[in-house]
Amino acid sequence: MIYVIGIGSGEKDSMTFEAWAALERCDVILGYRKYIELIRNYFPGKTFREYSMREEVKRCEYALKISRENPEKIIGLISSGDSGIYGMAGLILELADGDSQIEIIPGVSASSICASILGAPLMNDYVVLSLSDLLTSWEIIERRIRAACLGDFVICVFNPVSKSPKRRENFRRACEIILEYKTPDTPCGFVRNGGRDGESCEIMTLSEIADYELDMFCTLIIGNSQSRIINGKFVTRRGYDM
Amino acid sequence: MIYVIGIGSGEKDSMTFEAWAALERCDVILGYRKYIELIRNYFPGKTFREYSMREEVKRCEYALKISRENPEKIIGLISSGDSGIYGMAGLILELADGDSQIEIIPGVSASSICASILGAPLMNDYVVLSLSDLLTSWEIIERRIRAACLGDFVICVFNPVSKSPKRRENFRRACEIILEYKTPDTPCGFVRNGGRDGESCEIMTLSEIADYELDMFCTLIIGNSQSRIINGKFVTRRGYDM
Repeated sequence: MIYVIGIGSGEKDSMTFEAWAALERCDVILGYRKYIELIRNYFPGKTFREYSMREEVKRCEYALKISRENPEKIIGLISSGDSGIYGMAGLILELADGDSQIEIIPGVSASSICASILGAPLMNDYVVLSLSDLLTSWEIIERRIRAACLGDFVICVFNPVSKSPKRRENFRRACEIILEYKTPDTPCGFVRNGGRDGESCEIMTLSEIADYELDMFCTLIIGNSQSRIINGKFVTRRGYDM
Repeated sequence: MIYVIGIGSGEKDSMTFEAWAALERCDVILGYRKYIELIRNYFPGKTFREYSMREEVKRCEYALKISRENPEKIIGLISSGDSGIYGMAGLILELADGDSQIEIIPGVSASSICASILGAPLMNDYVVLSLSDLLTSWEIIERRIRAACLGDFVICVFNPVSKSPKRRENFRRACEIILEYKTPDTPCGFVRNGGRDGESCEIMTLSEIADYELDMFCTLIIGNSQSRIINGKFVTRRGYDM
């Protein structure tokens, strides 16, 4: 049995009872090094296997291999946030054959965690978009940014930048494109390490966002025409009569 | 103190430890009748106040009133899924003044629950869209459907239909619009009562979806050009080299 587990922020508080119980049952837990570090101390004595970024296929193949060779073993494959959103759920289902026993255990997504810290920016229709061009071409990303703006969606951006200078340039370009459609005073906010040690957040306007030093542990939310700053919180109005 | 709590599916398994602990601390818990029913038995002896649909403003005003009059009281305002996604988080922040103590506690969204049951359809950029025209005009909804298609986004549809015949007609119209952009064999799936008693799900193609009898407890996911049915599961490919 392979559990694909979303661990939320990585703090116990942010996990579901189902995710916790699945982790407790695992014989071995696989994941990206940083996420293993977040949960290791909750499960002393358990076997963990840490992987680097970009070793996603390797992780899944290893999980499938031990599952085939030891059908009685319980294997956990962890993702931060929700395992089904830019997590490991899709890849393992792509690589598995019909006999593999796989259960996807969802978690609180980084977008939900980020939104709750900033206020309530996702109260209206929204887009979730990754700016990583490792697996998606910049042409497709740009087309999606424009479409998201045409629909006046709130935009939740995963992986806004990485260590690469090219990605930082892409982020600047993304901000410029969005400014073609949304007004400069559109509320925006980002959260770094949401819901865990080192959490920080900032609220600013769209015209200011390109000047902030984001990193790959940031989730960014860009408002729509109904977004406001209310008592210091970033809120997108749903449209209730009040 | 007012906690705005996302209860996931409503089953304990689907709640976070943080949500559970907040519910335990509450003196009174307010919510839509159906969601109160889901959690009432977990907290015997606690005071609950049930509301009808469309009494969202009333609920928030009551919570703010008792919080002002009894600052020592702990009030819980619950939403299914994540409280920050079409839930109560935005409205209470709109109605509150700067002195109100409000904490938003996110939960596992209906989109994440639905995706995990169907497979992994949200592995690539996606849109979350409500078809309810109570608070958003059909013109805006239609513009958003078209934008979501132009961006080749996966589309997660909340409130696909309601009891009203007009909404059923809107749903048919939405399917027709999406068929102008996406191929008829695009994978789709919906889940009813995801993660709780009475759960059911179906996977079908876009050309078939309008014939299904959905209701307001269904969450629907419509694939993009990278979505496939793999071993009976609905998966959107992320684009890894394999």
